Order: sequence, then structure tokens, then C-alpha cells
Amino acid sequence: MTASPKTLSEHRCFGGTQTFHEHASGEIGLPMRFSVFLPPQAADGPVPALIYLAGLTCNEETFMVKAGAQRLAAELGIALVAPDTSPRGANVPGESESWDFGVGAGFYLDATEAPWAPHWRMESYLIGELLPLLGTAFPIDPQRIGLTGHSMGGHGALTLALRHPSLFKSLSAFAPICAPTRCPWGEKAFTGYLGADRTRWIEHDATVLMENQPVAPYPAGILVDQGLGDKFLAEQLHPHLFEAACHAIGQPLTLRRHEGYDHGYYFIQSFMADHLVHHAQLLKA
Amino acid sequence: MTASPKTLSEHRCFGGTQTFHEHASGEIGLPMRFSVFLPPQAADGPVPALIYLAGLTCNEETFMVKAGAQRLAAELGIALVAPDTSPRGANVPGESESWDFGVGAGFYLDATEAPWAPHWRMESYLIGELLPLLGTAFPIDPQRIGLTGHSMGGHGALTLALRHPSLFKSLSAFAPICAPTRCPWGEKAFTGYLGADRTRWIEHDATVLMENQPVAPYPAGILVDQGLGDKFLAEQLHPHLFEAACHAIGQPLTLRRHEGYDHGYYFIQSFMADHLVHHAQLLKA
Repeated sequence: MTASPKTLSEHRCFGGTQTFHEHASGEIGLPMRFSVFLPPQAADGPVPALIYLAGLTCNEETFMVKAGAQRLAAELGIALVAPDTSPRGANVPGESESWDFGVGAGFYLDATEAPWAPHWRMESYLIGELLPLLGTAFPIDPQRIGLTGHSMGGHGALTLALRHPSLFKSLSAFAPICAPTRCPWGEKAFTGYLGADRTRWIEHDATVLMENQPVAPYPAGILVDQGLGDKFLAEQLHPHLFEAACHAIGQPLTLRRHEGYDHGYYFIQSFMADHLVHHAQLLKA
Repeated sequence: MTASPKTLSEHRCFGGTQTFHEHASGEIGLPMRFSVFLPPQAADGPVPALIYLAGLTCNEETFMVKAGAQRLAAELGIALVAPDTSPRGANVPGESESWDFGVGAGFYLDATEAPWAPHWRMESYLIGELLPLLGTAFPIDPQRIGLTGHSMGGHGALTLALRHPSLFKSLSAFAPICAPTRCPWGEKAFTGYLGADRTRWIEHDATVLMENQPVAPYPAGILVDQGLGDKFLAEQLHPHLFEAACHAIGQPLTLRRHEGYDHGYYFIQSFMADHLVHHAQLLKA
């Protein structure tokens, strides 16, 4: 059961409305927060929405404050939705000891291992609880949802969109963790949340998921931007592996490599407009 | 003497460069931080710049993260500069006891009262130290500087532009404290920094400064945006007093009142483009 979301704050923005919400999540077993930007067009009826999944250490506010997405979303008539990146307040021992595991690092999957399994259920929360809520509690058309994300959230966007392709009409990512079974961030998170059996890890690896697709799941194309000045690129992100997987199964991918850009929101905001246009073309088609 | 600014971080952004700096300030007697966005056009020679003065509790990062100004600044070829809002690290007793006085609340003036006078010299720092530095340490044209700010920084923009009109070619503000001698924020700050003698306060009150101008100092007009959902409007900001002062001396003022918008950066980002265009028209004329 999902209770109606409480509105924590509301701000007028570009003729639309920026709001922050909290609701009691049945999947997580704790209160969860998320943010919504509604464009002016939402006053006239349901609009399509782009869900943004944030990276390590971020929360439901990061994207709305730092990405500069509202201006063009207001123009295009697209809602923006940003969930938090993990449960908070579970008081699991060690949950805040590292910045890349536990709080702020849910990795958008359902943990199977103790002590994480009871609360760290981000996939079931997003797919089974938040997504349905958007269509009932907001003027958002649940049939027209796009998905994007950054870093860990880019991993989340790619994997959730490949695991639940019927739910998302468009897909993109900024500097995603493309092959978490083959990088330190992913190995640490998957060991902790999923256990030592690597056969369970590959169900949450975007590159492996793409390799196993029988046909291109997003025939209109996936957009990925990656900075070449990103200090995490060589060790953690591996976009070339995802690129090869897309190529192998015939999935159209626009992977843009940008000289000098790093991993942060100055990079993200620089290319946000292209992502919004990419999603708008598919969500409003 | 001003030492060369050290670069603390550098980020590619919209084809330009977002940097954060620290330098030993002679006026403040402490290290001071500021941020600079250089548009792509700065690679070809000096560009005009817009200085943004932030509000209470903010620092040199706030504007660059939250205002969404870089996109259009990159297009228009205008640099952005954001100083910090007060000295930090002075260890003056009580400097961090309130959010509207001391650290993060320099009010863009030179304190005359103990214990603030030795370090709280934001006017001399900005006018005598940071402004000259922009032309020597950056590809910025010191003859084409615009000034804007928000709340306490709007007060700073209006008062510094009226006290030093030869230095600034264009002026605007977001929700400025327009009459600090007649509001609680101003009365607290001016009492602490300038003492009980109100005849010294009026030298830092934008409305009084405007009333005393013999001719319109910014004949091309001043742009001010104000949200009508701003919880500080009635008690602290008093834009109608500044409006009357402009009217009385023939200073063109575009004061826009926006239904529903509040005091924060969702408001600021909504109207940032209009301010950038306002400054660009005058700085690039």
C-alpha cells in the first residue's frame, strides 16, 4: 500500500511548479522522498514525464537544483521526476560508513542479502510504487515515461529500462556505470546487496542485459553522453563495453564523448537540453 | 597587495570554463574565494562580465550551482563572477551565531565597529581588489562590467552601483533588500557593522542613495524582479520604496512583480535569462 504523498515544499519555477514530496513506502518500509517539476502544460491535462535517477551521495534534490532542466522542460511540456538514491533512516549497521555503499547508494536494485534486503528495494520501489503513483497523484501520463540518470543513476536508467522495457518510451544516460560487474563500484555494491554469486549480478549489468536482448529494445535509439575528463571513466564506467553490446544486437546508440568534461553537474547541465529534446521527440510522438 | 588567485577547481561547462579560486585578500586580511565562468568567446580575447552578489548564508558556489546562468552566458559571450558573501575564518566572537549577521552576511560594506572592522570590508574588497583583479588575472574587459545580486546581494548590487557608478555599465537585482535602514535585516546588520548613528547607515541604503542622485545614474534602465510569493517581501525587501525613489529622480526602472514566485533559486533561475539579456545589451553595446 502506498499512502498519498505529502508535499514538503512548493516553488513556482518557469511558469510551472517545483515540488518536493514524502510518502510512506511499502516496498522500502520507510518514508521516501522524491521531487516533481510540473510544466505549465500540466494545468491542462496529463503530460509525459522524464524520470532522472541520481548518482552516488545524491538525493531527490540534486537534479532539480543543479541540472538546469526545468527551463526547457517547461517549454517542451515535460514533467521531471527525481527519486532519492536509497532508503534513509533504516539504521542498518554500517549504512553510512562509505559514500559508495549503503545510504545514498541504492544502485536501483532489490538487495537479497542481510542486512540490506528488508529496506534496500529500490527497483521494486521505483517500478512498483513510485511509477504507478505518478499517474494517480500527479497530472502525468503513465504511458509516456522516459528514463535517464547519471553515473550510478545511469546504471539504474539503463538496467531498469532493459529489465522493464514496456514501461519506458525513451532512454538516455549521463556517464553511466555501464558494466558494474566489471568495476570496483559495482563489485562492492553487488557483493554487498546480492552476495557472492556472480550469476545474479549479471541481471543488473547494462552491458550483459543488452548483450542478451533478442532484438533492439529501444529501436529509436539511446542517447549517452560521457566526458573525457571524467576521472571515473577508465576504472568505473566502461561505456565502450555497452557500445559494443549495442552494436552486437543492433541497438541504435548515440554515445557522445566530450573532450574535457568531467563527471559533475557542470557536465550534465551542458548537455541536458539534448537529452530533453531526445526524450520529448519520443514521448510526444 | 593582492596575490594571484589560486585555482581550486576547474570544470568544462557549455563550451566554456567554470573555475573556483582563492586568493589572499589584503583588504579582508584573510583568504577569499570567488568563482568565474568564462564563455567560449574568452578564448579569443577579453569579454564583458556580470558580477553576481549572493544573499545571506550563500557563498561563491551558490550562484554557479543553482542559477542556471552559464548556458545563456556562453551563448552571449559574457563571463560570470561570484564572490563569497563575507570573510571566513576570522574567528570573531559570535561571527557564526546568527544566519543574518557575521559569516555569510557581509552586507557588501566596510564595517566601522569592533570587532568587525578589521576583516568585514566587503566593499573595499570588491571594488578595490576583486574588480581590478578580473582584468589582470582573467580574459575579462574591466571597462564592461555589469552588476546584479539577490536579496542581501541585491542590496549590494544596488548600493555599490550607486556608490561607484563609473565602474558598472549595467545593473539589475533579484528580490533586493531595497531599504535596509527600514527593515529588520538591515537594522541588525547596520547596527552591528556601522554603529548606532543612522546618518552613516543611509550611505548604504539603495532607496536613500537613489533619492539623492542629481540625475539618473543608469539612464538605460535598471531591471528588478520580485516574487509576490516571497515570504520576506512585506517585512524585509520594500521594492516599492526603491521604485518611488527611481520615479522621483527620473531613473528608468523595470520592476516586475511575479505572482506566486518565492525568494529562492527556483525563482531566480526562472528570470535569469532576462537579466543576462538586459546586461548583454548594455555590456556589448
